[in-house]
Amino acid sequence: MRIALGVSYRGQGYHGWQSQTDGRTVQDVLELALSQFAAQPLRTVCAGRTDTGVHGLNQVVHFDTEIQREAASWVRGTNRYLPPDVAIQWCAFPGDEFHARFSAQGRRYTFLVLESVVRPAIEAGGVGWVFRPLDLEAMRAAASLLIGEHDFSAFRAAQCQAKSPIKTLRAIAITRRGAYWRFDFDASAFLHHMVRNIMGCLIAVGNGTQTLDWLAEVLAARNRAQAAPTFPADGLYFKGPYYEPKFAIPEHTAAMDWLP
Amino acid sequence: MRIALGVSYRGQGYHGWQSQTDGRTVQDVLELALSQFAAQPLRTVCAGRTDTGVHGLNQVVHFDTEIQREAASWVRGTNRYLPPDVAIQWCAFPGDEFHARFSAQGRRYTFLVLESVVRPAIEAGGVGWVFRPLDLEAMRAAASLLIGEHDFSAFRAAQCQAKSPIKTLRAIAITRRGAYWRFDFDASAFLHHMVRNIMGCLIAVGNGTQTLDWLAEVLAARNRAQAAPTFPADGLYFKGPYYEPKFAIPEHTAAMDWLP
Repeated sequence: MRIALGVSYRGQGYHGWQSQTDGRTVQDVLELALSQFAAQPLRTVCAGRTDTGVHGLNQVVHFDTEIQREAASWVRGTNRYLPPDVAIQWCAFPGDEFHARFSAQGRRYTFLVLESVVRPAIEAGGVGWVFRPLDLEAMRAAASLLIGEHDFSAFRAAQCQAKSPIKTLRAIAITRRGAYWRFDFDASAFLHHMVRNIMGCLIAVGNGTQTLDWLAEVLAARNRAQAAPTFPADGLYFKGPYYEPKFAIPEHTAAMDWLP
Repeated sequence: MRIALGVSYRGQGYHGWQSQTDGRTVQDVLELALSQFAAQPLRTVCAGRTDTGVHGLNQVVHFDTEIQREAASWVRGTNRYLPPDVAIQWCAFPGDEFHARFSAQGRRYTFLVLESVVRPAIEAGGVGWVFRPLDLEAMRAAASLLIGEHDFSAFRAAQCQAKSPIKTLRAIAITRRGAYWRFDFDASAFLHHMVRNIMGCLIAVGNGTQTLDWLAEVLAARNRAQAAPTFPADGLYFKGPYYEPKFAIPEHTAAMDWLP
């Protein structure tokens, strides 16, 4: 039987999603907890691996098991074995055709940035930081240059394992509440460090360091060396994947209401 | 010269505000950083001591020194010596008449509570948690019983050192955004654990465990043993004190825009 879970986690304490020999990844603690609850080894497949420090709001995983439990039992039972900064949000039975990664039609990320002369403290790790004022209209114009199907090689990390650098960026919505900027990304898929590299460029245009023409050249040149530095991971949230409605996979978790 | 500072901190990593021999309090790390920047020992007086796990949005401290620096220099210079979860937000020169504690006309706290069948993960430590639905109107009615000048002995911790249990509770505003409840408290001063004890009672009325009549009896009986259990500190934020306008002490910090 194929089981799907939604997982929220705070990324600061982990070496990213993907399992490593040191065991300090989100996948490691999730699979350990699942295996403890199920009393048998369980391995999961996720919708999108996240880097060190990146938070998950609705990471989706699937796995197969013969064990029969109600959905609420998988959630509550496994959460008992998880650390305080990781929690399963929901459990669904989407059918054997469902695949957390390959069935995804797209993925969403949110980047939060504090604009302040003083660095963050209470929300340290949960928010990026800029001390120079950002220009909303300049950033929206910059974002619009990137929307659509493009070769995003200029925003791709050297260690990226994706087969193709061509992705469809469906939306970048930019809003602010008080001192906090919020950037919502929606794409077919993301290259390694793509959100953080785009963020570096949006911030460079937003604070006046670079121009729209520069960004257009960066995109066209497909050369990572011309783009702005990779923005730090603090403030990056994986909102999760989305699927065909027939799978009935939830796209909202409570922590999404927490974000500014 | 008397100097006032506004300090934000995440309380999880500290044994409360007040200095202890183990050095793991917010006051300890603040005074160490100030003393490093000033190259001389500096001791501070705060507006309100916070307990273990309680966060500060705009804690106000004052101290006296002969050292002459610009306000921005005190902020930036000291923040360099502070850990990532503590940051000075502003510096003011309110005059020698100002006293962080005795000049305060009142204090404000905010309590954030997640209502969800699943415990918090991303915001662990930053939010309280209830899994039973809360009734807004019942909690507002309960809060209104407590507004005004009362003997708050029923909501006072045994170890409270306040001279009098009589305080003026000016407002409790209750709002919600999605899965998050927000309780904003404003009082002349707070007894030890007073916010957490009131929260325990509001939640008990809100989830139907107790009635308004019970709360009225608890207040009138002035007996801690009759009240609900003390609510955990997770989710409690000290918004800070307020003063006469002549002191020109800021009452807003960026992190206040972060809260739901």
